Amino acid sequence: MPSPSPIPIGELRAIPVLGIRDVFAGDSVAGLVVDALALGGLRFHAGDILVVKHKIVSKAEGRAVKLASVKPSAAARNFARKNAADPRVVELALREARRVVRKRHILITETQHGLVCANSGVDVSNVDGGASAVLLPADPDRSAAQIHRKLKQRTGLHIPVIIADSFGRPWREGLCDVAIGVAGIKPIHDYRGKRDAYGYTMHSTEEAVADELACVAGLVCGKNARVPACIIRGYPYRRGPGSARRMVRPAEKDLFR
Amino acid sequence: MPSPSPIPIGELRAIPVLGIRDVFAGDSVAGLVVDALALGGLRFHAGDILVVKHKIVSKAEGRAVKLASVKPSAAARNFARKNAADPRVVELALREARRVVRKRHILITETQHGLVCANSGVDVSNVDGGASAVLLPADPDRSAAQIHRKLKQRTGLHIPVIIADSFGRPWREGLCDVAIGVAGIKPIHDYRGKRDAYGYTMHSTEEAVADELACVAGLVCGKNARVPACIIRGYPYRRGPGSARRMVRPAEKDLFR
Repeated sequence: MPSPSPIPIGELRAIPVLGIRDVFAGDSVAGLVVDALALGGLRFHAGDILVVKHKIVSKAEGRAVKLASVKPSAAARNFARKNAADPRVVELALREARRVVRKRHILITETQHGLVCANSGVDVSNVDGGASAVLLPADPDRSAAQIHRKLKQRTGLHIPVIIADSFGRPWREGLCDVAIGVAGIKPIHDYRGKRDAYGYTMHSTEEAVADELACVAGLVCGKNARVPACIIRGYPYRRGPGSARRMVRPAEKDLFR
Repeated sequence: MPSPSPIPIGELRAIPVLGIRDVFAGDSVAGLVVDALALGGLRFHAGDILVVKHKIVSKAEGRAVKLASVKPSAAARNFARKNAADPRVVELALREARRVVRKRHILITETQHGLVCANSGVDVSNVDGGASAVLLPADPDRSAAQIHRKLKQRTGLHIPVIIADSFGRPWREGLCDVAIGVAGIKPIHDYRGKRDAYGYTMHSTEEAVADELACVAGLVCGKNARVPACIIRGYPYRRGPGSARRMVRPAEKDLFR
């Protein structure tokens, strides 16, 4: 019988990474973060986690697209006309989609990565004022792993990396951040079979810690303050290779598909 | 035209409230929190937010039910037999439900409050080792408002209160905490019409800050460590009367109903 194993509890801190300059194709996200921290007199500590908003990762990987270069298909123009959307953004969303989940008012798609979200994650805010859209990273887990490796080179430390984006969700209003790329940390904390403080064995408790960590970045980074990353200090995470794909519920297990 | 108004960004801290004793019907949650903080040499500061896991609120309100006292209906026994569940817990879940959303493997219901979750939020973990189940508070917004008022009396401060529970969700694996009761804070931060740092006017960005704050408590409180509350310090929240009902997406706006 497994013995109780409460996580040691202490104070959690979330430190915004200020002073990151505009990001362009070819930039190193890890380098920009380490340099910005150093300018502010800060550095990574052992045990820190880095959460990066996806947009700077996409920009660094050349995933910004000039809207003037996009020729919308008839389907994109049709949907955009009926729903007061930009047909070029709709076109990009359709190109990035594996399938369309819903199209009513907005386009809900399943992306090539298996993520279900609005417009395949294609977004025009916080790019360049409306001339370009940014696509999700082609492989956010690979992006997270690259940043994780680069941080190791720069700092000598094992720093887990979470790439976050803000998604809507069924049933509830408002966006919450979720982890779309993960490296160096187990994204799900499995309490199944563990006993609670009263000796009761928990059956179905799996905690989506990577998404909860992404939500911390949602609070600290804001949406319009040019703060695309934060450090989370004091969370007793569990090491693992990571993978945000692990967080996508397989269709056969999902009651809502 | 609205001008850019970035939230001032600083460090966010989440401080676990340690040393809260077992909670029983009639207890004052606000009193227990303030007393536990004092024992640890801590106190509330202006600007703090209190996040409380719902279970101690339910216990304080007498919402723990001895399973031996529950007579399962035929429907509950039938579902429980097919899905290896406890028929008494299923019975309580059905009684607490306004409607059953899905029943396959587990029971997904819409509660009397409009929340969509597993088993109407009825839970046996972290109660008394398996003899009792705890129901959600009858009116979690009212519960939050009561704790908020009591904190004002005890501390003289305006301390927003969020009551959190861990919910599963479609598309993604694992549970995340959500706000089921809210007082003293605007639960949704509406960026619509605000301009981003590049001058682009955001159209559809509403951030579910109360849920993101609940997620911080999910990380800091753990699931089996007897830490049922935490203080969040440094988040520049917006005052409001609050209400978690505001976070439930109306059926007519929800693409997934």
